[in-house]
Amino acid sequence: MTSNHLLVITRHAAEYGQLLAEANLPDLVIHTAVDHQAARPYLQTSNLILGAPAFIRHIINDAPQVSWVQSTWAGVEKLVEAPNTRQNYQLTNVRDIFGPQMSEFVFAHLIMMVRQDWARYDQQKERIWRHNMPAVIHGKRIGLIGVGSIGGDVARTGKHFGLEVWGYTRSSEGCTAVDRYFHGDRFLEFVSGVDFLINTLPHTSQSVNLLDKTVFAAMKPTSIFINIGRGSAVVERDLVTALEQGEIANAVLDVCQQEPLPPDHFLWDAPNTIITNHTSAVSFPNRVMPIFIENYQRFRENTPLKYVVDFGQGY
Amino acid sequence: MTSNHLLVITRHAAEYGQLLAEANLPDLVIHTAVDHQAARPYLQTSNLILGAPAFIRHIINDAPQVSWVQSTWAGVEKLVEAPNTRQNYQLTNVRDIFGPQMSEFVFAHLIMMVRQDWARYDQQKERIWRHNMPAVIHGKRIGLIGVGSIGGDVARTGKHFGLEVWGYTRSSEGCTAVDRYFHGDRFLEFVSGVDFLINTLPHTSQSVNLLDKTVFAAMKPTSIFINIGRGSAVVERDLVTALEQGEIANAVLDVCQQEPLPPDHFLWDAPNTIITNHTSAVSFPNRVMPIFIENYQRFRENTPLKYVVDFGQGY
Repeated sequence: MTSNHLLVITRHAAEYGQLLAEANLPDLVIHTAVDHQAARPYLQTSNLILGAPAFIRHIINDAPQVSWVQSTWAGVEKLVEAPNTRQNYQLTNVRDIFGPQMSEFVFAHLIMMVRQDWARYDQQKERIWRHNMPAVIHGKRIGLIGVGSIGGDVARTGKHFGLEVWGYTRSSEGCTAVDRYFHGDRFLEFVSGVDFLINTLPHTSQSVNLLDKTVFAAMKPTSIFINIGRGSAVVERDLVTALEQGEIANAVLDVCQQEPLPPDHFLWDAPNTIITNHTSAVSFPNRVMPIFIENYQRFRENTPLKYVVDFGQGY
Repeated sequence: MTSNHLLVITRHAAEYGQLLAEANLPDLVIHTAVDHQAARPYLQTSNLILGAPAFIRHIINDAPQVSWVQSTWAGVEKLVEAPNTRQNYQLTNVRDIFGPQMSEFVFAHLIMMVRQDWARYDQQKERIWRHNMPAVIHGKRIGLIGVGSIGGDVARTGKHFGLEVWGYTRSSEGCTAVDRYFHGDRFLEFVSGVDFLINTLPHTSQSVNLLDKTVFAAMKPTSIFINIGRGSAVVERDLVTALEQGEIANAVLDVCQQEPLPPDHFLWDAPNTIITNHTSAVSFPNRVMPIFIENYQRFRENTPLKYVVDFGQGY
């Protein structure tokens, strides 16, 4: 039987290598590389890739035998949008493993924000005891832009904490934890009614610049905006102006248009804003591996792979 | 029919007065006072009190007709333990309204702690982008000292977030969200097995100094301790030593033995500790009022009141 040659390209190549060795998959030769430079020796012989799109984009044109790429990330725009980069292979990403992490992130930040715990933390350093009456998220209304597997988990956690949940989707209404759905041209009505607005959208042509000054002007002045989707969804100058003028109260930005955010970037000066450096959900190798293992079995059996990316839609 | 005279004594007397006026309860004359000094004119005529134990302790001996006191707080030790203070009346407190607030507090702080978000917040001020791989609480084990209505809510929220839940109680095993119960002399075994230890106990003779150096020495060096019960449960010098020596990793103290904590107190210097100024759960008047209304109806009908405090047990 012909062996498959898998090239692993991620910063966590050692951990993936160990997990792959333990999995002992049939007919599989494994090569590991911590970045695209280290991957060079294996490009001609490999027919499968497991790794990070930021590295894979640099070598996919030079790996002619590769017919399937399993991304370790959810976001694949670095492959889908890279100019002059071949797309005649199957690209699969990881889904359904980020919901719980994203829920932890979203609700910890919402609760800390309404409790004013960042100010409390600053006051602790000055040994100030402030027994104020903190607010709670219980009873508030959360709005989710996008209700996929991440939005669905955030919706269920919202219901657990006693929130009302609104969702804005293209057309889907499949998540029963959403109390009310909005579609199409009802976006401004949707954002104007919520206390907390959470963007979970991937980068696509439809999400780019979706959140601009018109949107922020329609939101409640007490509202909190959290971006765990992609930075490209936000017109960042408009967001800062909205925060400065009190059109919205707070922002939590896990993603930005430019990452890492350089020290002189204007977003660092945005008032009432927490920046979390793209850490709201990470691809833990031990969560990614079951997806690769299942897809590898499907690949060998010539059955459809899971989580295939549509290059046209971008996700 | 004889009217009842209710004396309201809390900082939030105005809000309670408004809610009582809206409730339009039968046969009820209402007097409001923002502290015990302001209450003096109404002591002889009042037969009911609704308010904060810290004020009521000063006037209960001078209000001979009072036969029922509805505390707006859960903790009633300021009445139960006050020396030379009469106890020949019915004392009821508020329960079952703090669980959701306490759950918000506990899980927001646990998630922020494991994500190292306090360090991230400090780094944001210096415009440092740190894309580290944050930890999650999913899959960890939480231990609850006390599984009453608060502990039960924390347990259910723990299960929602995918944690294993252990509980230490005197004997009760009624909460099905607890995976494993411990009692009696198995306390050290209990604390040694958990990643997060949450004290929810009220102040009683059994909870005083429960958490001392023996307990902290038995805990995991990576563990996080949260106190949302009472400060008296902790030997505070032992806790600081344990934090300094790395016997435990972090502490979140919502309650302390001395409140407000004075600026020169040694707890402010405890490493890896967050102090939150007794704000983890507050008695919102609109949550307390339904309890008073129901108990007032029971009082008029001569049926047993809800949430009666046992002066001997202290809760």
